[in-house]
This record gives sequence, structure tokens and C-alpha cells, in this order.
Amino acid sequence: MSISGEAIIGGVHERGAAGSFKAWDPARRDYLEPSFHMVDAAQIDRACTLAGEAFDIFRSTTDRQRAAFLDTVAEQILALGDALIERAMAETGLPRMRLEGERGRTCGQLRLFAELLREGSWRDARMDTALPQRTPPRPDLRYHLIGVGPVAVFAASNFPLAFSVAGGDTASAFAAGCPVVLKAHSAHPGTSELVARAVVEAVRLCGLPPGVFALLTGTGNGIGQALVRHPAIQAVGFTGSRSGGTALMAVAAARSQPIPVYAEMSSINPLIILPHALGDRGADIGKGFAASLTMGVGQFCTNPGLVLAVDGPGLDAFCGAAGEALVAAPAAVMLNQGIAESYRKGVAALHTNDAVTTLARVEHDEGQGGAALFRTSAEQFLARHELHDEVFGPASVLVVCRDLAQLREVVEGLEGQLTATLQIDPADHDAARALLPLLERRAGRILANGFPTGVEVSSAMVHGGPFPATADGRSTSVGTGAIARFLRPVCYQDLPQALLPEALRDDNPLGIWRRKDGALTKE
Amino acid sequence: MSISGEAIIGGVHERGAAGSFKAWDPARRDYLEPSFHMVDAAQIDRACTLAGEAFDIFRSTTDRQRAAFLDTVAEQILALGDALIERAMAETGLPRMRLEGERGRTCGQLRLFAELLREGSWRDARMDTALPQRTPPRPDLRYHLIGVGPVAVFAASNFPLAFSVAGGDTASAFAAGCPVVLKAHSAHPGTSELVARAVVEAVRLCGLPPGVFALLTGTGNGIGQALVRHPAIQAVGFTGSRSGGTALMAVAAARSQPIPVYAEMSSINPLIILPHALGDRGADIGKGFAASLTMGVGQFCTNPGLVLAVDGPGLDAFCGAAGEALVAAPAAVMLNQGIAESYRKGVAALHTNDAVTTLARVEHDEGQGGAALFRTSAEQFLARHELHDEVFGPASVLVVCRDLAQLREVVEGLEGQLTATLQIDPADHDAARALLPLLERRAGRILANGFPTGVEVSSAMVHGGPFPATADGRSTSVGTGAIARFLRPVCYQDLPQALLPEALRDDNPLGIWRRKDGALTKE
Repeated sequence: MSISGEAIIGGVHERGAAGSFKAWDPARRDYLEPSFHMVDAAQIDRACTLAGEAFDIFRSTTDRQRAAFLDTVAEQILALGDALIERAMAETGLPRMRLEGERGRTCGQLRLFAELLREGSWRDARMDTALPQRTPPRPDLRYHLIGVGPVAVFAASNFPLAFSVAGGDTASAFAAGCPVVLKAHSAHPGTSELVARAVVEAVRLCGLPPGVFALLTGTGNGIGQALVRHPAIQAVGFTGSRSGGTALMAVAAARSQPIPVYAEMSSINPLIILPHALGDRGADIGKGFAASLTMGVGQFCTNPGLVLAVDGPGLDAFCGAAGEALVAAPAAVMLNQGIAESYRKGVAALHTNDAVTTLARVEHDEGQGGAALFRTSAEQFLARHELHDEVFGPASVLVVCRDLAQLREVVEGLEGQLTATLQIDPADHDAARALLPLLERRAGRILANGFPTGVEVSSAMVHGGPFPATADGRSTSVGTGAIARFLRPVCYQDLPQALLPEALRDDNPLGIWRRKDGALTKE
Repeated sequence: MSISGEAIIGGVHERGAAGSFKAWDPARRDYLEPSFHMVDAAQIDRACTLAGEAFDIFRSTTDRQRAAFLDTVAEQILALGDALIERAMAETGLPRMRLEGERGRTCGQLRLFAELLREGSWRDARMDTALPQRTPPRPDLRYHLIGVGPVAVFAASNFPLAFSVAGGDTASAFAAGCPVVLKAHSAHPGTSELVARAVVEAVRLCGLPPGVFALLTGTGNGIGQALVRHPAIQAVGFTGSRSGGTALMAVAAARSQPIPVYAEMSSINPLIILPHALGDRGADIGKGFAASLTMGVGQFCTNPGLVLAVDGPGLDAFCGAAGEALVAAPAAVMLNQGIAESYRKGVAALHTNDAVTTLARVEHDEGQGGAALFRTSAEQFLARHELHDEVFGPASVLVVCRDLAQLREVVEGLEGQLTATLQIDPADHDAARALLPLLERRAGRILANGFPTGVEVSSAMVHGGPFPATADGRSTSVGTGAIARFLRPVCYQDLPQALLPEALRDDNPLGIWRRKDGALTKE
């Protein structure tokens, strides 16, 4: 399947009118054909306007129809075959197995939202019975959630499939009945075009209005800002850098009608090793940590960029095992030149920072990332804010604390995080119990005796966390909870049965769970 | 019970250090004793810091303990006896019966949140079973909602009890486990102090840390801005004007850690009379509309400030009956001088606007509000944005449309609303069905054959709506759904049973509904 380098607006391929760029092959270190054409302001406006016009038609489809649509998107992605995997490999430098796994995750995610739609309780349907004899009489009240409107989705660089064109943001917005205007990541525009074609074909096969989905191509900040400013756009999903996310938050807040931004941005994912676990399993934890840190060349949002431990038995074993495993891990190609260059600078800054010592550092060629582990004291970490910043890639800082009280102080000084991990033995439970409230306030997911990389797509997952981990700590961007970001409640008072949405009719034609006078029932 | 005029911080009465003011009796048109002392920056800081320190203790109480606390607040409010009603009457000009009713609503609201805590499904508990044999293995994942942190609540002028010190924002924040720093409305500071004492007494009786609640007194914008800027504050509840709400939204968005603002601001609550209903019941609808418009001197957020109808049979009957009823409604004292003065100006501007004609206008003395009804054409309404602005009080604008297509055009031009009401006969159902999608996009509550004033406190209520009705159309400030504003999800991965929150333990000690592998169960 040849790649056209075009945007897709209203279901039709269209050449961007604002210049062109090419994708980069980070392994071959060369540009890839063909050129991609950047959309201009009029094209952005048209994509958003069509999304606005498609919204009422799309959201008035039945839940089963939208479920079938999501399943069809998954089928169409699989139908792209190996061409998708090969293009993604060329554009990202990621290995085949990883990309095949990510394709499975992407399709599984679409099907999970399809299941959620069929189950039905995502609508949070509620009914309060009329009490005509009461003074004053109580009316008949019914409540459910509907989509917020068209969503602008900004694809991530580090998951060219699962957090990209048909990734979690798109899947959850579609499930909610919201059209999506997608800004492709300029690092993998060919992969994006292929997946976008699959989505467009699913839109066509399911008889949906073509405005339900658009693919915008381009580089730089202008497209994103125009997109977030557009009056038809009602919410934003973003995965990327802290500077990019906060810039979009500012644009959204400055609109005459402000809109919510769900930006997943920055996290150093503290791994906290409590004393008994360190003493008993220091070397094992070091090995597991190194594997988590180097997985995918450290290019995960949940990469463990910070380790906290109390000085004592096991610390040397941890450092030795971690350092040995890190040095043994080969340097590897990073996703793109920008990431590799940022990583090189971040590691060099830590290496020359007089507050840290270097425990391990793997030399690497241009465009690659080699693992690095640094060590500092709690005092230095508390005093030097630059040590709190994310270095995206396989680098981490070990902060050695004098005692548990000082470790607590370090945790209190941390910003919001996607995850926090505790390595604990039963003898550490009291110390862990005392830390949990601090961690709950700072992280979306708390792990015990594991490592933070690996984010399950399921009902109970939270991939979110207080700012700056995300723009909005009340949300998750992975798992079925992600749909809540794109929903708002509407109440109907005394509306005749004939005019009520199916989910709220007396006879419960969808057979879903509903809350009647406060109590859950399927009646 | 004598009123001290003091703030309450850390459970202790404390004289504000930044000047003083007095409450105004709008009926007697004179100041009320005593003086109230305005808090300064250091006092605001201390209240917020104490709230931050109290948060972990407060949120770690059991749900039953917080339920008992909410019930105790209600008891303590009732224990204030008639002193509360008398002071509220003096400060607001509202009649005894209304205030006694509002006290009942306030206590009922606190008890409803207590019930919600005992029922338990507000926590949205979720569990995904570990699948150790899968490749890769799935960990054990558990999810629930926790409080976001201390909440700054800004009390409303128009509900001195139900949307004030212990009103819906405070009750829902407490239920979520969030301490509250309350900015009292300067129009009813004595009422606020009395209710604050009841809250403080309940805090003491329940053995909670005194930082759980603080009362700040003062006038002007400085206190509110300092409050929203304070790093300990994690969310804002506000009921008031559009200018006040948007100013706080801007402050919250400009923080180094942005926080959510739930501001309920501005709505003109369109009443849409479809042709058959108008022809059959024009006069009855006119009478009902007039009663809704003049209730409480029109000082409700859900007051019907806009009527849309198609020219045709019944329109004269509607105008005649509405005009007659409005002219017969006596002018009455408004809540405070600011509101009365804004109302006088708003009505005068409409009366002299060359795009409208005056159908009814009741003369009134200073400090009072008399009903007013104006008429304009759809063309004029679409062209003149000043006709869309809320005039807080018993004034409304009738927009006469040529046909249903033009009525639809008018609806499409409306901003976000708290409510939209349809007056329909069965023969109007097709027209109503075509309008519903537009109304769902613009309003939080859609009523049929009723009037928007009167907001039930229940499970299925939505008192919210797209901007500018509220800051955040994904929320409601009335009903049990209001608790969701102050919650965020946390996921626990492979956490030992001994460290899990009660709501997520295997044996379900709370006996609550939980979502296990996606399906609801009490197992």
C-alpha cells in the first residue's frame, strides 16, 4: 500500500497546503519517502467544522453500533498487514516484536471499549421516581452521560500505535460518541496515515458521517494551537512533553469557552526500596530495576527515573547488580533525533552535575541511548530541583536517604507522578502503611514489588496522576476509565417515554445496570 | 447566640486583621450589628495550611465516620434554632418560610451525602484479577476514588444556607474526604458565622482535626484570589457571577500547579413553547411561567430569563396571561443592594433597547425587584448579543420566531445553560425530538411541561451545564453526582491485602458494589 503523504479530511485524502516534511529512519539515519504535506489553517478549520457537524449523528448511534465500529477499526488495522509493521519499524527504530505486540494492544483496546459499550454501565444511568404526593411534588428525573463533543487528539511519539491514531484517546473518544480530529506525530507520519486509512475505511463500512475522523499532518506548534482554539473542539487528549502539554493547557484556558485538556506529560516514577526488602533482595531488585529501566530504550512514560533507598544492608548489592545489568544492556536506537539529542544532553548534565556521582553509564553513538544510573544524597536531591526533572530515556537517579524520616521528606518534595513503586517485605509493612497516604496524593498508580513499566489495559488501571504527570489528576488515559474524560451528565425532568434515550426508558431495553432512587438495579 | 464578627481558623474564633464591614438589612435598609473583621493574607495562609495538614487524617476516616460527621453537622444546624432563621431573614430579606425550607434542604442534603457514603458505590471500586499464567502475566489491579485535597468554597448570595457555608459544595467535599476553606458571602456574614459554628462543633464532636473546616470573612476579590492561589488548595467550588467565576478560573489556570474550578455562573434557562402546546395551553403556560419567574423575586440560577415561541395561535393568550400575572405580582425586596441595582439597570437597558418592546413592567422602590417581560423578534435576538445576557431577577425576554426552523436557529445561537424547558403536546413530539440533540449540547437539565425553578436534591439531578452556565460542563453542583468533582482515581498493583484500603480488600468488608473484571458484584 503506497503512502500518499496527505491529510484525510471528510473521508478524503487531501494534500496539505502549508509546506512539506519527511519522516526520518532513526536506524538507517536517513529520510524516508514520500514527503508529507502540512495542513494549513483552512484545512484545520474544515476538519473541525466537519467533526462538529458529525457529532450529533455519531452520538445518536446506538452503543452497539459504536461497538461494531470500534471492532471494525481493529479489523481494518489488522488488515493493513505487515506493511504497517514495516513502516512503523522504519519510522521508529522499534523492533518487530514490540510493534506486533503494540498492534495487538491497540486492537485489544478498541475491543475493550466495544465491550464496555455493550455492557452499558459506563452511561451511569440514574432514575429518581416521581413523588407527586410529596410537598413540593418530586418530578421524574433521569440522568445519563453523553459525549462532550469533538475531541482533538495529539498522538504520542513513543507508542506509534497504542497512543497514536487509533490509540487509547481515540478509542475512548469514539466510545463516548465524540468525533476525533487527530494531529499525527511528525516522527511517524506514514504509520499514522496507514492507521488513519483503516479508521476511515471503518467509518465508511459502518455508514458513519466522514466528519467522525480526520487526520492532520504537520510539524511545529501552529497546527496544535489552531486545533485547540477551534470552537468546535470540546476536549483535548495529548501525550507528550511537559512543555507541549502546558502550552496546550494555556491555549485551552484562554478560549472564550475554556475546554478540558487531558495531557499526559511528565513523570519520574519513584521506585522506593524499603529497608527489609533492600537487605533481603537488594541484588534481585537491582536486576529487575535495570530491566525495567532499559526496556524499550527507556522510552516509556512509566520508566523508573528515580530510586529512593535508605543507606544500609543491601544497598551495595542493589547498586552492584543494577550497575552490572545496565552496563550489559546494549545501547540502542532511540525513537527520533529530538529524543536522542535530549537524552544525550540530560545524561551529560547529570554526569557533570557536582551533586551526583555516576554509577553506570553506557557509551552510545548518535541517535542511540545507553543506560545511565546516577547517585546522590537526599540533601542534594532536596536542594537541587534539576534532579527532579524527567530525562526521557534509560537514565535514573538513586537518592540515598539517611533514614525513613528523610525518605519521607524526599517523597513530600516530589511532584505528581504516574506511578510510585514500593519494594517491601512483610517487615516493611508498617513503614509502607505510613508512606501510602503520601504516595496516594502524588501518584495515579501504586505498585508493590514490581516495576512500573507495563501498563495493563483494563477496568482498574489508572494511567494518570496529579500535575505535572498529567494536566488533570482526576483522569486516566488507559483502561476503561478513560472514557469518563469525554463525557458529561444530562438530566431529563418529566420527559415523555417516547422522547427519552433508550438507556433511560422504563422498560430498560438495553438491559443495563441503572441507579434507581439511589440503588443499582437491572430492573 | 451572639455573633462575634470573627473568622474561624483551626477551630478557633479569630478577629480578621484587615479592616471591617457590616451586613446590610435590605428590608429595613440599614446596617446590622456587629462589625465583621476581614482576614488578611497570613490568616488565609494559615487556614489553607491547616486544611492541607488535616487532609490525610480526614480522608483516612471510614466512610461511616464521615457519614456520622455529616449527620452531626445537620443536627448542629438545627440546634441553632430560630436565631439562624432570624439572622438570615435580616441579612437577605427572604421570608421565614423560604428560609425554613432552605434549612430543611440544607440538612437533607448533608444527610443524603451521609447515605451515599454508607451505600459505598460512589468509590467506584474496581478489581482486575491477576492472571499469572498469561503472557505477559497480568498483575492484580484495584482501583478506587479518593479526595483531591482541600477545597476552597465560595458561598452564594442567593441561597444563604443551601449554597453557602454548609451547602452542597461543602457537603460533597466533606463526603469526598476533603477539608473545606470557606469564603463567606459578605451579604450574609452573620448567617455564615452561625452555620460555621455548627460545622466547627460537629468537627469537635466527631474528633476530627480542626483544620477540616475554616470560615474566612471579608469583602472584595483579594481573599478569593489568595485562596485559589494557595498551594494547599486542590479544587474550587463557586456559585456566583460570570465575572467572578471566570476571574477565579483564570487564577486557577495560572497556578504553577493548575487546579479545577467548579463555578456555577450564568444561565438564562430558555423556555421553549412548541406550537401545539402554545395553541392548546398558551394562557396556562403564561401563568405558570409568571409564577416561576417571580418566585423568590427571580433570584434563582434557574430563573426562566428567555422564552422562545413560534408566532401563531396561543401566543396572544400566553402574553396576556403572563403579563397579567406579572403585573399582579408585587415588587419585593431583593437580596442586597448590588443585586437590586444590577437588576434596575438591566431592566432599564431592556426597556430602552429599541430592539424590544415592553409587555409588562412592575414599578418598584429602591432595593426591590418588580417583574418585567420584554418581547423581541428572532432576527433582533440573533443580531443583538446583549439580549442573551442574564438579568438576575424577575425579568425575561420573549423571542418570537417565524417558524420552527428559525426557532432552531435561535437555539443554535445560545450559550451553555443550566436548564432548557420544552412545553410540548404529543403533537409536538417530532419537533421536540429534533430539538433535543441541540438542547443536550447546551444544557445540563432538560424539562418537559414544567418550569426550571425548583432543583431537586437527588441522585439523578444535574445542576450544571456547558460554559458559561458553569466552568466545567462535566459536573453537577446539586445531587449526589456533585461528589465526583472532588475525587480522583488511584490504582493499586499487587498491593498486599494488609495494605489495601477496606473498600478493595478481597472479603469486601464494607459490603459495597464493586466492579470485578469489568462486572458489577457485591461478592
